[in-house]
Amino acid sequence: MRAAARLIRLIDDGDPSARDELAILYRHSGRAHIIGFTGSPGVGKSTLVDAIIVRFRKDGKSVGVLAVDPTSPFSGGAILGDRVRMQRHFLDEGVFIRSLATRGQFGGLTRSTADAIVVLDAMGKDVIIVETVGVGQDEVDIAQNAHTTVLVTIPGMGDDIQAIKAGLMEIGDIIVVNKADREGAAKAVREMRFMLHMSMERHLDSNWEQPIVETVANADRGIAELYEAILRHWDHLRDHSHQELQSVERSRIRKQVLDLLNENIMQRVMDEIDGASDLDDLVDQIRRRETDPYHVSVDLADHFLRRAKS
Amino acid sequence: MRAAARLIRLIDDGDPSARDELAILYRHSGRAHIIGFTGSPGVGKSTLVDAIIVRFRKDGKSVGVLAVDPTSPFSGGAILGDRVRMQRHFLDEGVFIRSLATRGQFGGLTRSTADAIVVLDAMGKDVIIVETVGVGQDEVDIAQNAHTTVLVTIPGMGDDIQAIKAGLMEIGDIIVVNKADREGAAKAVREMRFMLHMSMERHLDSNWEQPIVETVANADRGIAELYEAILRHWDHLRDHSHQELQSVERSRIRKQVLDLLNENIMQRVMDEIDGASDLDDLVDQIRRRETDPYHVSVDLADHFLRRAKS
Repeated sequence: MRAAARLIRLIDDGDPSARDELAILYRHSGRAHIIGFTGSPGVGKSTLVDAIIVRFRKDGKSVGVLAVDPTSPFSGGAILGDRVRMQRHFLDEGVFIRSLATRGQFGGLTRSTADAIVVLDAMGKDVIIVETVGVGQDEVDIAQNAHTTVLVTIPGMGDDIQAIKAGLMEIGDIIVVNKADREGAAKAVREMRFMLHMSMERHLDSNWEQPIVETVANADRGIAELYEAILRHWDHLRDHSHQELQSVERSRIRKQVLDLLNENIMQRVMDEIDGASDLDDLVDQIRRRETDPYHVSVDLADHFLRRAKS
Repeated sequence: MRAAARLIRLIDDGDPSARDELAILYRHSGRAHIIGFTGSPGVGKSTLVDAIIVRFRKDGKSVGVLAVDPTSPFSGGAILGDRVRMQRHFLDEGVFIRSLATRGQFGGLTRSTADAIVVLDAMGKDVIIVETVGVGQDEVDIAQNAHTTVLVTIPGMGDDIQAIKAGLMEIGDIIVVNKADREGAAKAVREMRFMLHMSMERHLDSNWEQPIVETVANADRGIAELYEAILRHWDHLRDHSHQELQSVERSRIRKQVLDLLNENIMQRVMDEIDGASDLDDLVDQIRRRETDPYHVSVDLADHFLRRAKS
């Protein structure tokens, strides 16, 4: 546990020395069920995750939790720390909770989440829950690391929430309407059903019908249904007749390789650029409108990339 | 106006043919005041932007608005379209409103926002307002395209909103507490002041003290103060005694070049990868745990990058 905690800290700091250990651990990974919880701030994700942890523990499963926090772009540290609402699990050795906050300029958070999943998976956790905080592209990217994505919403939060839901719903394998005792819950479910109907053909897995589960997380209502839906989705993926798990694994790996490749390439490019004062000169030339960012970036790409077929 | 609209559509589609036109337009850009509005969904950003447009128009300034929308990761289209609340400006030729939604895998949204700013700037717009929807890293990135960033919050939206605020507050040049007639407004302002005090040393521009403005956007309360704060920040940047504008411009350009470079490099890498079946083979080897993503990504980076000093 200590070694894992240390390694996750290295990953979160973007320390490249973690890579060798990760490469070894990777060979021992690939068993866990990875579940993502995503949705706008304030919808009650932590309370839901907490309740789901209890269910998995009752069934004798070990659980790893990654809480992906927003970071200050400048100070670079996690703000929330390990989620307060999950504190009651801290004494349970079967539950391992860590928060992640890395903000690399080039997809660092998605990469570090994938790395931390490898660590928890190799530790032998049966279930890994990834909880994100926001509703942007980061969350969509991070959701693509999961086998099962739970999209959490609440009734009536204004127009742009609706819009975000429409975008994220395509990645949600299970849709939760939390705080379902609030006014407007029935309307929210109806709207959601309508949106699902509209976007049905776009959900990647045509063999899975996305369930809508109503919950009141802090009153433990609907948790059994949500838990059942999560297990059912995992069974669905592993059902050999449509080989969904294999296809999900392929796209997860492909994404992880490309994220690592992007970070790797840009790290090396930045190392070389930071060593020279050329970029500063170019920036000043652009500022004086003697050249433009478009030509400069193409020239730089030519400089760094090996020519194809040479 | 038509040519600009067409070009912004090309930019949003990620069409590389826009680059040549952008390079020419770039030479005619660099005059506009770029203002970012960011904050969680539902805080009333569109209503505030609408009210601020009215003020600028009264002062005879032309305004361009970029509404950066969340996109479905699969369908790829904008969901909100041009913001409904701003419709009353559609007949005003001095206001040009467009929405952006590009979701490239590698920082496409930040890049396309920067490109669209170039178009509006070269069109001669005095003021360009960029409105984002979410609160993730995308918004932080996009905020870095602006001269003046307005961070919009509302009283009492739960713990994780607080955390997000703490992260985003460092990029907010002006903090707005909207819906200030709500219960808890005074408390929210106090908390905000406390957080600003705590993080003061981290704000990049030590000569600027971030004002906190209370507004009730749909009752036009506090709008005059917000407008004044925006103008005051622009004057502050252009005050030659501390050369802030030059430093902001340098970091904006640097970011734009690096985003373009990243996209350029990864586009070429992806073109080459997609042409070959090698990646699929590698993915399957990783899936069978015969190798791992860490070694594979380093090998691929070696393959694509020109060795330094050769």
